[in-house]
Amino acid sequence: MKIVVAPNAFKGCLSGTEAADAIITGIKRVPKPYRIAKMPIADGGDGLLDVLSQRLPGAMETMDVHDPLFRSARSDFFWSPGGRTALIEMAKASGLAMVAEKERDPDKTTSYGTGELIRRALDLGAETIYLGIGGSATVDGGMGIAAALGVKFLDQDHEELPPVGASLARVRTIDRSQTDPRLERVRIEIICDVDNPLLGPNGAALVYGPQKGATPEQALALDAGMANLADIVERDAGKDVRAVSGAGAAGGVGGAMYGLFDAKIRPGIDVVLDLLDMESHVQEAKLVITGEGQIDYQTAYGKAPAGIARLAKKHRVPCVALAGSIGRVTDELYDAGITAVISICCGPVSLHDAMCNGKTLLADSAEQVMRIYADFI
Amino acid sequence: MKIVVAPNAFKGCLSGTEAADAIITGIKRVPKPYRIAKMPIADGGDGLLDVLSQRLPGAMETMDVHDPLFRSARSDFFWSPGGRTALIEMAKASGLAMVAEKERDPDKTTSYGTGELIRRALDLGAETIYLGIGGSATVDGGMGIAAALGVKFLDQDHEELPPVGASLARVRTIDRSQTDPRLERVRIEIICDVDNPLLGPNGAALVYGPQKGATPEQALALDAGMANLADIVERDAGKDVRAVSGAGAAGGVGGAMYGLFDAKIRPGIDVVLDLLDMESHVQEAKLVITGEGQIDYQTAYGKAPAGIARLAKKHRVPCVALAGSIGRVTDELYDAGITAVISICCGPVSLHDAMCNGKTLLADSAEQVMRIYADFI
Repeated sequence: MKIVVAPNAFKGCLSGTEAADAIITGIKRVPKPYRIAKMPIADGGDGLLDVLSQRLPGAMETMDVHDPLFRSARSDFFWSPGGRTALIEMAKASGLAMVAEKERDPDKTTSYGTGELIRRALDLGAETIYLGIGGSATVDGGMGIAAALGVKFLDQDHEELPPVGASLARVRTIDRSQTDPRLERVRIEIICDVDNPLLGPNGAALVYGPQKGATPEQALALDAGMANLADIVERDAGKDVRAVSGAGAAGGVGGAMYGLFDAKIRPGIDVVLDLLDMESHVQEAKLVITGEGQIDYQTAYGKAPAGIARLAKKHRVPCVALAGSIGRVTDELYDAGITAVISICCGPVSLHDAMCNGKTLLADSAEQVMRIYADFI
Repeated sequence: MKIVVAPNAFKGCLSGTEAADAIITGIKRVPKPYRIAKMPIADGGDGLLDVLSQRLPGAMETMDVHDPLFRSARSDFFWSPGGRTALIEMAKASGLAMVAEKERDPDKTTSYGTGELIRRALDLGAETIYLGIGGSATVDGGMGIAAALGVKFLDQDHEELPPVGASLARVRTIDRSQTDPRLERVRIEIICDVDNPLLGPNGAALVYGPQKGATPEQALALDAGMANLADIVERDAGKDVRAVSGAGAAGGVGGAMYGLFDAKIRPGIDVVLDLLDMESHVQEAKLVITGEGQIDYQTAYGKAPAGIARLAKKHRVPCVALAGSIGRVTDELYDAGITAVISICCGPVSLHDAMCNGKTLLADSAEQVMRIYADFI
């Protein structure tokens, strides 16, 4: 009898790995001849590295890059030599946290440093690159990344433009002749948890520009510039990026990576489930236990627990979610494959105390759930 | 598929009946072809009347009695004419709450009023009397009840003593010649949730005397008086009440009722389970859901949820307990038959908010538990 233990992180309290350990502690209090697959999940951000670095053999690779304001900065990414796989987080080279609040100005910031990380991964022999694009400081339409990989963005005078937001509206031609040839053989997957389109009121500039320092006028200008870039990418690279879901993530990086390098944009949880070969584990399991700090009906939309739940539903395996806090729960969650949501709070308790006792509470609630299932599976 | 819904009251929040309604609300959100038996339980006190008056046809019978200080007071008890059954709560005629704090003095208080209720039940034709003895104001060794039913307690001069605590030490003879003859045909069951013996450090006077107003010296004197009464009951009625578990409840009423009227002392939950014919329901159920405000390892000892759990265990039916607050849980609880304890608190919450939302929380958690079981039963 196999049990898959696949929680997300409990934000501010437990990493995915710690949560899985706590759940397993609880399960093991119920003596049964089961095999436990410890497989924490993540849907993006820091959790991704926590989860995947447990499963893929490899190590962090450190190097110098240019930060969003072209200053020198240390950065790193995860490199798994056996699988020739790199896991890069954009926030570590082009992150909003790397730019002081008063310096934030998407007209001036670049995603160039992220492109440098990709180049180094290619140097190491990467065949697959996973690029997490949360937390970026930029609205440069991905020009920075592309520039670091040899793509030139030219103005009406055929002069090369700096790869920053202010250049978006001035691009007239894209010169791809110097593009790193290794990009043709590498598979790039963009890990992206929003489905914003590139342009318009839900697009890269208008939705995310302001939090990166754009004034309302700037955001409108960036949106217009992004439309210009989209036109030129379509003309010069033959790809329509306007309709791509997620193209508006990270200041247009999703769109550029798709348009210029044929990258796939995928929800983080799907990538994680693939890399962990989760389906084959779930398929032979009698029970899946997932969990997250907060669970409500929105969890059904692309969040990690819903991803694992869909696999469980496909193979008709019960999937219980343990939650630090349960919000409004609707049929959408159940339709996604969650059998039931069980609270880890054992009574009236403050948020602080619940956080402090997260491990214990999670272990205790997992034990109780296991006791129920132990009668049947 | 039958589900037995048998919660105790959630003290300060929901009666047993309200709790059962909330649980059923949650269960019904999971569409399944089940039959639900709504059977709230109780282990004593007010809950008893709430629970049994739902199942037995009958009504409250109101009358005048003598209160613990021989003053006139209104009181009532439940009378079920069909079953010729009376349910009497001692607290309603001889209760501590009927005596102001500064008036409390077990030398002077009597259980006489409770005896009057019993006499009225006999007048109505009672064949079975259930007597709940929690919350009494008295340490009179049950002399008050007995006196109201015709028993005379005589001193060394063959003078009749007033049936109060101060008389305990002075009893020399018990005159049973005037005892109500109907008592020979009636079955009296004492509902009692403590197992204190009549005498000694765990006995009626030393443990419960102080909370009824006894000074330490008075409590010692009452204990000695109680020993005297026990000797005389043994001599005159042939019953040894010293060894009876629960004889020390309600200031010795348990002992007196056993010694003089052959009453049985039983845990409240056992009486409730009998009266509700619970075993036949549990026997054919696929799931039992119980619950209580607070559940911990002590719940295993005579508390209502453990009573229903024992029946469930006997018939190999899963029994889940929903708890407002889960304390320390040990194997004792599981050995009693509780499959699992699930919290109704859906996240960090104050006691006040949990209380205010008790119905919703209970319904929501019952729904989740039902969703788990729905895959199997």
